[in-house]
Amino acid sequence: MSPDLPSLYRLGIVGAGQIARMTHQAAVKLGITPRLFAERIDDSAALAAPGAVFNHPDALAAFAADCEVLTFEHERIDIGLLQAIEDNGRLLRPGTKTIRAAFDKMHQRRVLKNRNYNVPAFAEIRGPDDLLDFVADHGYPVVLKTVRAAPPGQRGVFIVDNRSEAMRVLAEFGELDLMAEQYQAIMKELVVLVVRRPGGLSRCYPLTETINHDGFCTEIHTPADIGHRLATEARQLAIDLANDLDAVGVLAVELFLTIDGLVVNELAARPHNAGHFTIEGCPTSQFENHVRAVLDLPLGPTWAIHPAAVTVNVLGDLDGVDPAQHLPEALAVEGAQIHLYGKYPKPRRKLGHVTAFADDVKQAAQVARRAEAALHGRRPF
Amino acid sequence: MSPDLPSLYRLGIVGAGQIARMTHQAAVKLGITPRLFAERIDDSAALAAPGAVFNHPDALAAFAADCEVLTFEHERIDIGLLQAIEDNGRLLRPGTKTIRAAFDKMHQRRVLKNRNYNVPAFAEIRGPDDLLDFVADHGYPVVLKTVRAAPPGQRGVFIVDNRSEAMRVLAEFGELDLMAEQYQAIMKELVVLVVRRPGGLSRCYPLTETINHDGFCTEIHTPADIGHRLATEARQLAIDLANDLDAVGVLAVELFLTIDGLVVNELAARPHNAGHFTIEGCPTSQFENHVRAVLDLPLGPTWAIHPAAVTVNVLGDLDGVDPAQHLPEALAVEGAQIHLYGKYPKPRRKLGHVTAFADDVKQAAQVARRAEAALHGRRPF
Repeated sequence: MSPDLPSLYRLGIVGAGQIARMTHQAAVKLGITPRLFAERIDDSAALAAPGAVFNHPDALAAFAADCEVLTFEHERIDIGLLQAIEDNGRLLRPGTKTIRAAFDKMHQRRVLKNRNYNVPAFAEIRGPDDLLDFVADHGYPVVLKTVRAAPPGQRGVFIVDNRSEAMRVLAEFGELDLMAEQYQAIMKELVVLVVRRPGGLSRCYPLTETINHDGFCTEIHTPADIGHRLATEARQLAIDLANDLDAVGVLAVELFLTIDGLVVNELAARPHNAGHFTIEGCPTSQFENHVRAVLDLPLGPTWAIHPAAVTVNVLGDLDGVDPAQHLPEALAVEGAQIHLYGKYPKPRRKLGHVTAFADDVKQAAQVARRAEAALHGRRPF
Repeated sequence: MSPDLPSLYRLGIVGAGQIARMTHQAAVKLGITPRLFAERIDDSAALAAPGAVFNHPDALAAFAADCEVLTFEHERIDIGLLQAIEDNGRLLRPGTKTIRAAFDKMHQRRVLKNRNYNVPAFAEIRGPDDLLDFVADHGYPVVLKTVRAAPPGQRGVFIVDNRSEAMRVLAEFGELDLMAEQYQAIMKELVVLVVRRPGGLSRCYPLTETINHDGFCTEIHTPADIGHRLATEARQLAIDLANDLDAVGVLAVELFLTIDGLVVNELAARPHNAGHFTIEGCPTSQFENHVRAVLDLPLGPTWAIHPAAVTVNVLGDLDGVDPAQHLPEALAVEGAQIHLYGKYPKPRRKLGHVTAFADDVKQAAQVARRAEAALHGRRPF
């Protein structure tokens, strides 16, 4: 870091996965080289950025002391520790008010309910009795989830259809804090990305729709195939929420579209997997705008350059073959934007993504899926 | 670098300036983390990439031994040394045939003339007699230039109008190898970027026009404001030249448009300052396509996403103020793409660039110039 840079550009990113990797790249474009708080030497961002700090979470306070502004790429951080760092005068962006709502899903539900956002019925589950009480009111199926984020690649959400399934999940995950939610008949899953500066200026990205299989997000379609009225409502909801939580940086608002309208599913207070299309698809990527926002710099335009975008996540194959081995075949798919994260291949691990742009979502999906298939060594279809 | 990556992805970049910095970013997108051969710890790319090697040029052979493919971001390398590395079995991309033509301007002129490309009259200048002979044939003004690239920020080209000016340049630069060229009445300066794989597949970027002041390139306009016929001729010339030189990676062909047609000015066998608009302006940037080409991977599309692009170079102010200090004002210019290289500010040093896109060059220039002015703390005009 140049000693001449204003001290507000001494940015630290807690976490060094692919979100940090892409955020780091966006910062480098602006002449800013964030420091990274990594967990492992082969973390995605640590492979591509200099001077990552590898430390036990307890060392976070020491890392923070070297930074003026601290931002976050994951939710696996002790909130009390962050509160202490904030109390010590570091700028946490987002601050602990937002972090608490993003990291602790029970707290999130309470905050949203208190502010009259539409959320499913929910309850804390400290044991079988709490769950049976909840089911007595709301019936099966019921959604069980961990209050804190599950480690990457691990499931944190379970839909159980009967008592024996419920008890199995409780037995297996009972050591973690769990909560129950009323099952929603979901027509679509949407994500609104809003980016907000301290003080309140904010911008919204085009509304996206996520396609999920077995609890994993496999594709992201932009624009979401919903009407203008719902899209406007979703955007307004996300902006209101960002203001209510005093969010800074990207706030990703995951929504369910149900027969009763929009229901808030979850919040993430960081650049989001659903926003990777913004790298090539918008004048300012979610990563660059996140950096701008957390450094209190003017935000850039967030409109879509192309009519439609589809991102396909590249998940690790069961045979453990590295998609990088198939880079030649994938790059041969004209117009596909291939992103690989440099991560060690494991089954279902998020190893990269492919984005394609076209005049409509169907065309874009064809190109992106063809490149993703190529990365897995499958013949194009 | 993941040990699982195919060995052809063990890419080394000789040089660590802004070209290497942007090439590194393009490689990281593809999951590849090139090694850098830097000169100084505060080289632009070394600030943003891990594990740069800082070494005396003599240590290049040791660096090369760790890489499978070597590519270059500058011309200040001993060609004999590269020849020895190539003879030792390393893949140099481009190879020494191209490097010789790009690094040694006398050799370049001879090669081009032998192959009937249109070049100005030229001669090697070993002393005043050679120069006076040349002037006797071609008259003043005469162009004097260094045969090898001048260090960054230093002038390597002098237009002299009379004998006393000529003798002054000879006295000042006589220790360097010099050459003379017949002065051209230049209507426009153009750059064609062609990227070529081993084996010959190549793609051309939209033709650009460079605007120069006092021997420094200040702006790059795309598309160049010339007719279709000349644009086609320029592109074909560049493709032919890339084939003739067996170029691999980006070959930048700098052309003069004179009253007699297109004249080859200079070649650069690497991503070029005139191609920075390709980062946001084309589906595949010159940097990504350079990486793809030197690793013999399929090339990506090179068409222009927007009707017009203008890049303004950000040169260091005479007062030495770091443009990063004015980032807030510059980012407030809607639609400007701000790139800062993290370099220590010195007068006239290339510290960054700004690109803007619009429906025509005039509009794009307004936005880019406004942001560049803001980076220098000047009021927008």
